[in-house]
Amino acid sequence: MSSSISDQLQNLGLKKLRPSGRQPDQMREVKITRNFTKHAEGSVLVEYGDTKVLCTATVDRGVPRFLRGSGQGWVTAEYGMLPRSTNTRTDREAARGKQGGRTVEIQRLIGRSLRAAMNLNKLGENTITIDCDVLQADGGTRTASITGAFVALQDAVNVLKKDKNGAMKGDPIKCMLAAVSVGIFEGQPVLDLDYAEDSKAHTDMNVIMTDKGGFVEVQGTAEGEPYSQEELNAMLELARKGISQLVEAQKAALAK
Amino acid sequence: MSSSISDQLQNLGLKKLRPSGRQPDQMREVKITRNFTKHAEGSVLVEYGDTKVLCTATVDRGVPRFLRGSGQGWVTAEYGMLPRSTNTRTDREAARGKQGGRTVEIQRLIGRSLRAAMNLNKLGENTITIDCDVLQADGGTRTASITGAFVALQDAVNVLKKDKNGAMKGDPIKCMLAAVSVGIFEGQPVLDLDYAEDSKAHTDMNVIMTDKGGFVEVQGTAEGEPYSQEELNAMLELARKGISQLVEAQKAALAK
Amino acid sequence: MSSSISDQLQNLGLKKLRPSGRQPDQMREVKITRNFTKHAEGSVLVEYGDTKVLCTATVDRGVPRFLRGSGQGWVTAEYGMLPRSTNTRTDREAARGKQGGRTVEIQRLIGRSLRAAMNLNKLGENTITIDCDVLQADGGTRTASITGAFVALQDAVNVLKKDKNGAMKGDPIKCMLAAVSVGIFEGQPVLDLDYAEDSKAHTDMNVIMTDKGGFVEVQGTAEGEPYSQEELNAMLELARKGISQLVEAQKAALAK
Amino acid sequence: MSSSISDQLQNLGLKKLRPSGRQPDQMREVKITRNFTKHAEGSVLVEYGDTKVLCTATVDRGVPRFLRGSGQGWVTAEYGMLPRSTNTRTDREAARGKQGGRTVEIQRLIGRSLRAAMNLNKLGENTITIDCDVLQADGGTRTASITGAFVALQDAVNVLKKDKNGAMKGDPIKCMLAAVSVGIFEGQPVLDLDYAEDSKAHTDMNVIMTDKGGFVEVQGTAEGEPYSQEELNAMLELARKGISQLVEAQKAALAK
Amino acid sequence: MSSSISDQLQNLGLKKLRPSGRQPDQMREVKITRNFTKHAEGSVLVEYGDTKVLCTATVDRGVPRFLRGSGQGWVTAEYGMLPRSTNTRTDREAARGKQGGRTVEIQRLIGRSLRAAMNLNKLGENTITIDCDVLQADGGTRTASITGAFVALQDAVNVLKKDKNGAMKGDPIKCMLAAVSVGIFEGQPVLDLDYAEDSKAHTDMNVIMTDKGGFVEVQGTAEGEPYSQEELNAMLELARKGISQLVEAQKAALAK
Amino acid sequence: MSSSISDQLQNLGLKKLRPSGRQPDQMREVKITRNFTKHAEGSVLVEYGDTKVLCTATVDRGVPRFLRGSGQGWVTAEYGMLPRSTNTRTDREAARGKQGGRTVEIQRLIGRSLRAAMNLNKLGENTITIDCDVLQADGGTRTASITGAFVALQDAVNVLKKDKNGAMKGDPIKCMLAAVSVGIFEGQPVLDLDYAEDSKAHTDMNVIMTDKGGFVEVQGTAEGEPYSQEELNAMLELARKGISQLVEAQKAALAK
Repeated sequence: MSSSISDQLQNLGLKKLRPSGRQPDQMREVKITRNFTKHAEGSVLVEYGDTKVLCTATVDRGVPRFLRGSGQGWVTAEYGMLPRSTNTRTDREAARGKQGGRTVEIQRLIGRSLRAAMNLNKLGENTITIDCDVLQADGGTRTASITGAFVALQDAVNVLKKDKNGAMKGDPIKCMLAAVSVGIFEGQPVLDLDYAEDSKAHTDMNVIMTDKGGFVEVQGTAEGEPYSQEELNAMLELARKGISQLVEAQKAALAK
Repeated sequence: MSSSISDQLQNLGLKKLRPSGRQPDQMREVKITRNFTKHAEGSVLVEYGDTKVLCTATVDRGVPRFLRGSGQGWVTAEYGMLPRSTNTRTDREAARGKQGGRTVEIQRLIGRSLRAAMNLNKLGENTITIDCDVLQADGGTRTASITGAFVALQDAVNVLKKDKNGAMKGDPIKCMLAAVSVGIFEGQPVLDLDYAEDSKAHTDMNVIMTDKGGFVEVQGTAEGEPYSQEELNAMLELARKGISQLVEAQKAALAK
Repeated sequence: MSSSISDQLQNLGLKKLRPSGRQPDQMREVKITRNFTKHAEGSVLVEYGDTKVLCTATVDRGVPRFLRGSGQGWVTAEYGMLPRSTNTRTDREAARGKQGGRTVEIQRLIGRSLRAAMNLNKLGENTITIDCDVLQADGGTRTASITGAFVALQDAVNVLKKDKNGAMKGDPIKCMLAAVSVGIFEGQPVLDLDYAEDSKAHTDMNVIMTDKGGFVEVQGTAEGEPYSQEELNAMLELARKGISQLVEAQKAALAK
Repeated sequence: MSSSISDQLQNLGLKKLRPSGRQPDQMREVKITRNFTKHAEGSVLVEYGDTKVLCTATVDRGVPRFLRGSGQGWVTAEYGMLPRSTNTRTDREAARGKQGGRTVEIQRLIGRSLRAAMNLNKLGENTITIDCDVLQADGGTRTASITGAFVALQDAVNVLKKDKNGAMKGDPIKCMLAAVSVGIFEGQPVLDLDYAEDSKAHTDMNVIMTDKGGFVEVQGTAEGEPYSQEELNAMLELARKGISQLVEAQKAALAK
Repeated sequence: MSSSISDQLQNLGLKKLRPSGRQPDQMREVKITRNFTKHAEGSVLVEYGDTKVLCTATVDRGVPRFLRGSGQGWVTAEYGMLPRSTNTRTDREAARGKQGGRTVEIQRLIGRSLRAAMNLNKLGENTITIDCDVLQADGGTRTASITGAFVALQDAVNVLKKDKNGAMKGDPIKCMLAAVSVGIFEGQPVLDLDYAEDSKAHTDMNVIMTDKGGFVEVQGTAEGEPYSQEELNAMLELARKGISQLVEAQKAALAK
Repeated sequence: MSSSISDQLQNLGLKKLRPSGRQPDQMREVKITRNFTKHAEGSVLVEYGDTKVLCTATVDRGVPRFLRGSGQGWVTAEYGMLPRSTNTRTDREAARGKQGGRTVEIQRLIGRSLRAAMNLNKLGENTITIDCDVLQADGGTRTASITGAFVALQDAVNVLKKDKNGAMKGDPIKCMLAAVSVGIFEGQPVLDLDYAEDSKAHTDMNVIMTDKGGFVEVQGTAEGEPYSQEELNAMLELARKGISQLVEAQKAALAK
């Protein structure tokens, strides 16, 4: 949906304002800051509005046992929230002695998505570990993580490219990757839900796409009422628009 | 896609045979056996071909702490695989001391989906726990679990209905619920992947729908190549067909 | 035995009726079904009345570290109950993060007993893992597990025998093995306690014997009053009778 | 017995010498020292030769949740080995993060046995926790633990008896309790196996009896060859003799 | 101090240069940024050169069980390092399932120190939890944590002061608190060790002091050679100087 | 402070008596018993009054992974309290499934201190594990542990010296090591706090020194009021006196 149409609709009083005052198809301000910390091969602070995630990439020679001798590399991810990244304090998972189900789900999603953007054979027997740690949460931490993680991954791959002993066999990155959430909020499909919307949305869908428009993962959950094919299509259309902007932001950050 | 078209295509030799010899839009044989064990309020053995899952429903008075005094009930699920339900033995999670990430993901999905089919206020302060234990695995254990779990849940609700002290406030079940996997196998959208297909599919999508055709959850993952909007639509169309057959099987089992 | 005969006996004051109407020396109906599931090298459903246990045997090349290079094999067992195999739901051990004391005791007993029936040197450096999972519990799950496990073990050994590279050095099975519980219920020694008896028995004894009548393990616990030498002897005599019937049932199953 | 006598007996071909030079029916020297440490309500060092176990009894008001309001008390036990109580160092269970299967088995046995010697109704809603910690191991730690634990339990009950607010309803101790191991070593039934015998015995049996000669628990395991009814009887006869001496030692210690 | 002066000093043979070019009594640049994140009652980014720690303070009504009804409050702390805050990636403690010994030591030190600066009776039955999460590590993370934590604690107390229902009974903060490390590096006492020094120092001492010059905690460890009373005194003198500067920085930050 | 001065002060009525009646600079009676148990390479019971700790040393060939091939040895320590070593029963850490923070802190302190007294290169690739298990606690368990551990360590090194294949390269022990606590109790510096003092002391300091008077570790914590430089000096002076007596006791024990 073009923003001029959405403007006209609102002028006609047909659309409710979102809590943030954003248009239905409007993303929050996106910032991508590379080299946020100094030790990691890639270190990216990604911000979708008030959601701030630090994504670092670590390169290690060698691969997990199940890949040894295969000539193939590996990309994996871990996710965490600082205890007070949230409105009320969340228990520290290290202190509780295990990662919660939500954490496990999210880090598996991040790792799986990034691998889909990679040619692991070209990576050679190297492992890249992406850590996504949420400094401040305001909805969309998993999608922001993926968008930031891709940039950190690119930086880590660039470090490997310069390493003559790095065992790489060409560029292992097949395509760019970004993620955004969409949902049905007060009956209306909206792009990039913040916490105020996410906690009340009837449907919440995370969409991960390549820069060429292919779907890598779609996860759409009805919290209350089931959603229809038409609503699904409308949400995917919004997602496509958001992904396009996110890829531009990634390119701009990587060009610096 | 109507089956007559698929027949015509195959007559023209355009479609590759699936490993099982099934048509692209053909489900495995589905069996739903109620009262498989004697202790539980609901006990259902569900079979999608060689995939066999025992789904039991347990009714407990009271609710988790976060719901106490709310007048609202709760539905939750746990999932497990017997160690030798799989082709090679899987470590017993109780012995390893924690549930793996895949298990956590699946049981959260089952619980979330079932709750979407329920009016938890009408359930009153009762908790229904669904256990899905895989006796034999051949692909699609999570979707079979959901289809069987719904029948066990219905049986448990029926037990509560007969209980004068059960605190129910009308029928808490809003709609029927079934699940099926679809995917892209050797370039072709297929319905209800078995293990031979699942392990090689380029895309794997789990679709959970109501009997009225609404989506409760869509989870589509590209294992290798991203998938297009057209492929997504074709998979959802196959899923809709499978769900329709599964709901019929559920109705037939519940009518006995 | 028809209940009218048991009624007549009771009228004669000869014996108290057991809750199930069985005679003191009468076992429940025993069923042993091989090939219950398709993946395992041995897969046996054993039933002692309403107690139903799935016993699978898995063959792996290699042995635990402490046996490497010894030329000797290993047999081990794990035990679990499905959460709703019991009258009220038992917490899932995988979710609690550890196996309970009772589980640990039982699986150690099963493994130890099976090893006593084996010549581990003849097994070669192979490991056979027996999983005993209780689908439905009504007393005697550990003794049923051992009786079923032996049959699954025999099937697994037969698979190894056919394997030219299997490193076996002759038949590693020294003798057959079966197990039954006996106890003192309402002052009277009885054979093969079901749950209604087990939960009230003054003494509960598990007896594991070979087909040649040797004891492999005797575990007799006084729950309330201590038991005398005479009671011990009477219980062992009942056990001997039960074991003899169980070994016949094993032979019949293996002959199919 | 002096070794010269045992030598003469052996020369006469009457009995094989045990590694320690003991007769088959001869126990190791038994010592029971009360008040070994100062804080506990009962604190007993029990020694069977070189096996030394510190048994402490702790009295707490109140009972576990499942007994609250029942008017009934509880007795439970925990067991541990100091890491270097054994010939080679055993990993510290606290550091490994879990108690091993053997530990769990033993502490359940100790607790169950002690409860069989108690009238828990008379104990009132008090809990007595027995800790058995092995300072030095040389075989028979679980049987020594039970014999020492009973004395510590008696001391703790005596403390409760003096407490006017202690909620006791008469003497909760029904009978005395002691334990000893017996086995088949080099074809001969022997009493009170030490480590040199235990590690090579064909059969190992733990017998727990009351001072009146009733069996509380019999656990007999064939490590290699199954054992016959005659061997079982011979072992129980030896056990009866040992228990009698142990009860005398307990009485002497309690009389001090 | 400009590096040219330090060069001149070194040329004069007066002092060895530290790896960073700092004088022995020179701290790294210290920055204290309040309100770094938006959700917490206190949120402070503290930097000692390249060491960056985010300290948040969370206020909860109520106290741990052992203080309930005492009228007294509680202050506790947790500490963590982001996996790639360090030069090589540190395993995520949440994924490993437990906090390491170093983490436990540090968070106990932080909590204990902060409580020493508090009058817990005046705090009323409130709990303040301080989370110290290291974003980037370059030596001295525990001392920076304490210095930053004190500022976050002050902000949290200020929030409570404004709360009419907050149960505070006057100002619970008795004094200001800051921390710094000192050590013996290449034979010379130095202030505020960075990682390059810390990893090679013969002695490492953490000193926590109040703004009035009292010691709250002194922990001095000889890594290689023991240290003398004179060296101890020299280190404490340096610490006193550093603490004085840190307290000034805290005051400046709190004044903004 | 010389004891004659302290006598004079007390005669003047200026000093409060300690709960035990000891002088401020007076240690409890110290006993060191070697060969307390029979299996370990070193086994020492150390007593500071009613505090009794069993320290055993275990020699293993080989070193942890991070030292393999370095030619260097390793010394590590573990600490535990028997559940009823304390006045009220402490939960068994093995049963709780993890070591508490205090335990971790103490065992790290013991290991670190012992290593500071060693030349690990001369030890060769051997590991010595020190277990310190508290049989009875009355304050000062960590300092008693270190003093006893050093003697057990010396015994273990002596065992290695006699082993021609032991890979030692000269005497790995650089100096003797002992530890004592000091504190401020009722405003007065005191030596070797017992539990009655420790639980009320304003400041508690553990001092670990070599026989030559060097500091290996100083840990001084203000529980209530901060302490001054003068108090710190007075406590260190007392510690020096106590260490001197402890080293004499160690020498006497080792001379036997």
